[in-house]
Amino acid sequence: MNSEKQPIVSFLGPIASYTHQAVRQVFPGEKWELEPATTIEDVFDQVQNGHAQAGVVPFENSTNGSVVFTLDLLADRDGKYSNITVDGETYVNVHHCLVGHKFGLPDDAAEGSGTRTPTASDPRPSKPKSQPLGSLKSIQRLYSHPQAFGQCNHFISTYLKGVEMFDVSSTSKAAEIVQSDTTGTWAAISSELAASCHGLDVLGKSIEDREDNTTRFLIIGTNPSIPDDWDLVKQSLAEAGSKSMVSFTVPHKSPGALADVLSCFRAFDLNMTSINSRPSLLAPFQYIFFVEFEGHKYDDPDGRVGGALDKISSVAESWRWLGSWKRFR
Amino acid sequence: MNSEKQPIVSFLGPIASYTHQAVRQVFPGEKWELEPATTIEDVFDQVQNGHAQAGVVPFENSTNGSVVFTLDLLADRDGKYSNITVDGETYVNVHHCLVGHKFGLPDDAAEGSGTRTPTASDPRPSKPKSQPLGSLKSIQRLYSHPQAFGQCNHFISTYLKGVEMFDVSSTSKAAEIVQSDTTGTWAAISSELAASCHGLDVLGKSIEDREDNTTRFLIIGTNPSIPDDWDLVKQSLAEAGSKSMVSFTVPHKSPGALADVLSCFRAFDLNMTSINSRPSLLAPFQYIFFVEFEGHKYDDPDGRVGGALDKISSVAESWRWLGSWKRFR
Repeated sequence: MNSEKQPIVSFLGPIASYTHQAVRQVFPGEKWELEPATTIEDVFDQVQNGHAQAGVVPFENSTNGSVVFTLDLLADRDGKYSNITVDGETYVNVHHCLVGHKFGLPDDAAEGSGTRTPTASDPRPSKPKSQPLGSLKSIQRLYSHPQAFGQCNHFISTYLKGVEMFDVSSTSKAAEIVQSDTTGTWAAISSELAASCHGLDVLGKSIEDREDNTTRFLIIGTNPSIPDDWDLVKQSLAEAGSKSMVSFTVPHKSPGALADVLSCFRAFDLNMTSINSRPSLLAPFQYIFFVEFEGHKYDDPDGRVGGALDKISSVAESWRWLGSWKRFR
Repeated sequence: MNSEKQPIVSFLGPIASYTHQAVRQVFPGEKWELEPATTIEDVFDQVQNGHAQAGVVPFENSTNGSVVFTLDLLADRDGKYSNITVDGETYVNVHHCLVGHKFGLPDDAAEGSGTRTPTASDPRPSKPKSQPLGSLKSIQRLYSHPQAFGQCNHFISTYLKGVEMFDVSSTSKAAEIVQSDTTGTWAAISSELAASCHGLDVLGKSIEDREDNTTRFLIIGTNPSIPDDWDLVKQSLAEAGSKSMVSFTVPHKSPGALADVLSCFRAFDLNMTSINSRPSLLAPFQYIFFVEFEGHKYDDPDGRVGGALDKISSVAESWRWLGSWKRFR
């Protein structure tokens, strides 16, 4: 144990969540205290109020899309998170398991062919890529996070059709709930790690629709340049360019205003890698937009990022630079 | 009753859903058979296979953002909906109620001040705009659609903190579930219409965060021009221009490709009104984009829409015109 007080990194918990896996990839436990938070908002709060020096939150999944809670916090409509910047990103390859109590029931052969019945409207139903490890006939309730349900559609609609589904706040929470089941009729979709933490049997492995199911996490802080400590794990990795994120709103009475802002990136030859939008909540059907692009505000030798940001400030109604970070591979 | 077979319009049910309100605004019941479907996918299936001549599905809410299920069906990754076009839109002003059984309990004065305790991280918590009509102390379970939870954040976090929340497929389904409650400890967030259909008491009115909470619905069909019948209700309304929607993917190895497609709208002076993106599911972190813009493919005297679509076809990797429609006010 180190007697010095370690810096804290706050992450979306609980212990054994996928975000926990993400935070362990970037923040070495011997240098940082890894502290789970209950909600994504709590992570933002802990970083903004200075209790944590960094935070890790999910941002998007390759199968299921954006995490709107994180976008809404980055939108910062109430000005609560004025110091927060996006300072990095990391990826976790997500493999979901079906977990529950077997209570010593015999391991039947997995029933069913793994094929859904073709219908007129769905003549070629998608086949799940993995089979159950035993009979799932007894399962009546399924707990998980809505994102995980969205990533395991094929398995659920083939092997768990008609089972009652309950959304909970995290996949680890789902495993925790199913731990208390005494009937063998409940199951959760969670990581293998969460199953073993909660003493559950694995009833199906890699049940996600797609092999390449990956979640991208953002590292937030109040420090616009990357602290050296974060790089410890990355020192063997090659840099793969930089990325930045901005948010903006456009004057809604001015036709072409959105195109004017987007053309700023093109004018300075900056490649946009994502666009998202959320309601601005200023008036119905006006939006706050989020753009990621390749380039770094503080590593900008030819001034392209600076030029684009200047131009955005002259055409957007409001805008904010949310951060720049190095990428690794 | 008309002995002739009426055309069918399929909508996201059940009866008394907000989509039911939307469909009634556009499709007069004496000319159309209004047929509820269980899921948004079912509406698309009924229209694609010709059982229904039109369909109505939710597309976005002014508080809570896009309906990703509808975007994913419009993405049509499996080519199941090749005939479907977006042929119109309509708006419903959404007022949610808290509903449940009072079982003759006395109407206490609504407890609490309606103010959340300010904390360091949230010094100015948002105040809900309406108060409960009676005590909510007995409520232990809350059922609704996730979109409705997202639209009633302030009320829930002020008056129903700690209550267990259950996501169900629609607000009307939530009311149906709570109908069977015999303990007075369950409540649902639904429309007033759904409450009265299921014999429930209203425990809180207009509990949505924002007065201007509005949902936009799309009218889908397999007919790229508007059938005259749809306009019956609209004849007294002024036309307010046209809108079109396209989806596209970009070559992911070509920097600037997204900007190139977006610049097509600017080149022809077409105002973009929304941008959305969803995972392409071709490879992780590649997207299918959706753009709405002002203009009509079949009412295009100066050829600007035609010009932009031609240009898009030369720079996008793949693209699809999803429809053009007239707007009314």
